[in-house]
Amino acid sequence: MIVLYDSPVSGNCYKVRLLLTKLGLPFERRTLDVVDRSNRPEVLGGLNPALRVPTVVLDDGRSLGESGAILWYFADGTDLVPEDRFEQARMLQWMFFEQYDHEPAIAVARFWSLHRDELDVDPEKLAEKQAAGHRALDAMERQLGSAGTDFLVGDRMTLADIALYAYTHVADEGGLDLGRYPAIAAWLARVAAQPGHISIDS
Amino acid sequence: MIVLYDSPVSGNCYKVRLLLTKLGLPFERRTLDVVDRSNRPEVLGGLNPALRVPTVVLDDGRSLGESGAILWYFADGTDLVPEDRFEQARMLQWMFFEQYDHEPAIAVARFWSLHRDELDVDPEKLAEKQAAGHRALDAMERQLGSAGTDFLVGDRMTLADIALYAYTHVADEGGLDLGRYPAIAAWLARVAAQPGHISIDS
Repeated sequence: MIVLYDSPVSGNCYKVRLLLTKLGLPFERRTLDVVDRSNRPEVLGGLNPALRVPTVVLDDGRSLGESGAILWYFADGTDLVPEDRFEQARMLQWMFFEQYDHEPAIAVARFWSLHRDELDVDPEKLAEKQAAGHRALDAMERQLGSAGTDFLVGDRMTLADIALYAYTHVADEGGLDLGRYPAIAAWLARVAAQPGHISIDS
Repeated sequence: MIVLYDSPVSGNCYKVRLLLTKLGLPFERRTLDVVDRSNRPEVLGGLNPALRVPTVVLDDGRSLGESGAILWYFADGTDLVPEDRFEQARMLQWMFFEQYDHEPAIAVARFWSLHRDELDVDPEKLAEKQAAGHRALDAMERQLGSAGTDFLVGDRMTLADIALYAYTHVADEGGLDLGRYPAIAAWLARVAAQPGHISIDS
């Protein structure tokens, strides 16, 4: 049985739950606190150098961290990973974009907004994160709008769509305005209509 | 001929130059300014949704952004990418770690330090980046020290080593103390001794 060190609020963890559910792979969830992280070295030391969730432990005891790497491990060889090397690279391009440009803006704006009471958030820093998040959404809108593909890499759903759906569909919880992005809105509905979809709170 | 939109100071671009040189693939460098980025939409619009360097354009006109995706495209099928799916995922784990935890700390600390005169850098923010950078180096030291592997994924060099070498070997330029990390120091020498190595300023 696969063990997933998990957080219900984390979009990065949701990506893994969504994929494992689509693939019909059973897993056990072990929830960690995302505000008080003091037990991370104890729990995740030796499993994930970054001491973050998601971390998975396979049935043979080997472990993996980083949502993008975990998605790759389980999906490689399925129709969620293109066979063509260029299309694989394009998929990875969007997954690296998500972790570098999109998540650090949108996930952080959302985290700060959801935990406003516990955290002492500087409104100016929040506004900066929201502006960076809108720039990331602009880039997605260009791909899905003017480039006119149904999914981020051509006309079939790939891991890039799972990776970018996770925080995009809850970007409004971080104070971002999804109403500006008609092509993203159509894409969100398209992703949610795919077989085996589950919601972030399921 | 491959075109590389490049910056001599960027470790992300260096990763691509290092790999292409190792693989014996000729490329043309087109240097962009990394401080004044005003011409980015004009030059990179349509080529890379993130409007950043490195961006490569292949001889058939197709383009790729994100250093990790570019490395994957050129190296897949060579001995720099393990054949085993778990080892591929481990390699990607370190590459995502680099883009999420390591680069945003160390590359930014270095960029701010190198461009101190042009940029108005807040010393407190710089100290935060340096502390985050030391945490990323701690994670690498644990892998290369106590786990005792020669390279980040086992005993053979992979793309993970290229990705993490780029900014680690110049971390001192960002005010980080590499003297704390004997296992990293031995690994840096090991990576630099591999066939086809070039320096960041070559």
